[in-house]
Amino acid sequence: MSRRLSVDLLPGLHPAGAAGGTALVIDVLRATTTATTFLEHGADAVVFAPSPELAFARRQHPASGTRTLLAGERGGIRLEGFDLGNSPLDAQAGSWAGHTLVMNTTNGTAAAHTAAQAADHILLACLRNAPAAAARALAREGDITIVCSGTDAQVSLDDCYTAGVLVRGLLAAAPAGTFLPNDSAQMALALLDRWPDPAAALQASAHGQRLLGMGDTDLAFADLALDVAFCAELGVSSCVPELRGSEAGGLVFR
Amino acid sequence: MSRRLSVDLLPGLHPAGAAGGTALVIDVLRATTTATTFLEHGADAVVFAPSPELAFARRQHPASGTRTLLAGERGGIRLEGFDLGNSPLDAQAGSWAGHTLVMNTTNGTAAAHTAAQAADHILLACLRNAPAAAARALAREGDITIVCSGTDAQVSLDDCYTAGVLVRGLLAAAPAGTFLPNDSAQMALALLDRWPDPAAALQASAHGQRLLGMGDTDLAFADLALDVAFCAELGVSSCVPELRGSEAGGLVFR
Repeated sequence: MSRRLSVDLLPGLHPAGAAGGTALVIDVLRATTTATTFLEHGADAVVFAPSPELAFARRQHPASGTRTLLAGERGGIRLEGFDLGNSPLDAQAGSWAGHTLVMNTTNGTAAAHTAAQAADHILLACLRNAPAAAARALAREGDITIVCSGTDAQVSLDDCYTAGVLVRGLLAAAPAGTFLPNDSAQMALALLDRWPDPAAALQASAHGQRLLGMGDTDLAFADLALDVAFCAELGVSSCVPELRGSEAGGLVFR
Repeated sequence: MSRRLSVDLLPGLHPAGAAGGTALVIDVLRATTTATTFLEHGADAVVFAPSPELAFARRQHPASGTRTLLAGERGGIRLEGFDLGNSPLDAQAGSWAGHTLVMNTTNGTAAAHTAAQAADHILLACLRNAPAAAARALAREGDITIVCSGTDAQVSLDDCYTAGVLVRGLLAAAPAGTFLPNDSAQMALALLDRWPDPAAALQASAHGQRLLGMGDTDLAFADLALDVAFCAELGVSSCVPELRGSEAGGLVFR
């Protein structure tokens, strides 16, 4: 029997396909790229908190045996009182052994919470870990739903492009007829023809344009262009954050 | 100042872009193709009724000076008690002078009602009238939102492909910088590279597959493949249904 392979262009848009099975959640600019990088560089766990308030509460009542740091943004800017923003380059620059990173961001953390209401298994995907994430989802049984976080409730090219990379990887790795792609999966695939270079796709997206524009206008954002370039590196990481449970409303990925 | 050019992959998904301006509503398989064909073949008006019940009420209390016929479907099948289904070939085969066609269908009529809540001007678009519809929207001032009806609340390739044809036409007809396309508009454009032939795009869509499959299994649906081929004919009609007002909850197009 064929496995449904659905792309959800916004969280919850395709609830039928998200029932059970495995969800791959994408917020390539930048939350799932950053979460992947924290874990790749030794973090004990990454926790997606549903709100900044619950992130602060988590710092007040930390889990034992690990130090809690808060990371996140609104509108691309580090949240007041948080230890870190949402930059994957900051994540790459550190060594996080002995630390749990509690994240809250504009789009990605909410998308993971929506996906977790429907799917049995939740993986975080980005361009950096796309081949590894596709392989992990393929190894599970059941349907696969690729959930695009979008940007401010709008469908975003950057996430849909990443979904296309995952669809391509899944179709290439499985025997013909294994998957039944929905229309959105076919549409995501078409983006790969138009933008053979992932960096060009991210730069063409409204979200990419906004991040690059912030870099032009303010020295504090001078490295956002480097962030976008880092997010565009395809298949350089084998780390795939997987949902292991929830604590105090936060989703715990390892 | 640039005009926003937004594709709404499902009705209401992009409410910000739909405020004011002109909306082009697409249900290429088949409601907007059929409505266009009714008007092209002489109908006094096409009325999109919000429900089958309100369509029946309209027949009980018809407008003077025109004969009322009901046309519509659920799941591709003619509604019980309706005079016609939703086949554009039936629309093409008739001569509708002196008749008002009251339509209710699964996706398209609801999409037009959603769009009418936000936009100042509503046009119905399909592949057959795409160049004419783009020209009509271009001639208006303000933002343009292309609303894809989708199929059973899912994003559908057939409507998104038609949106791409409209985006291409609008961008080609206006000086560079006239329009500011959103991410979904860029994604719709990418579909044209993947499927240079419109018929292939409609056949690849889940909705197209379903209609073709119904044709395979039941003689009553034997002409649905012909319907799909008819819907795929690009730019053969100059008729663009435009919303002229509402009567008893129905949207009146001429």
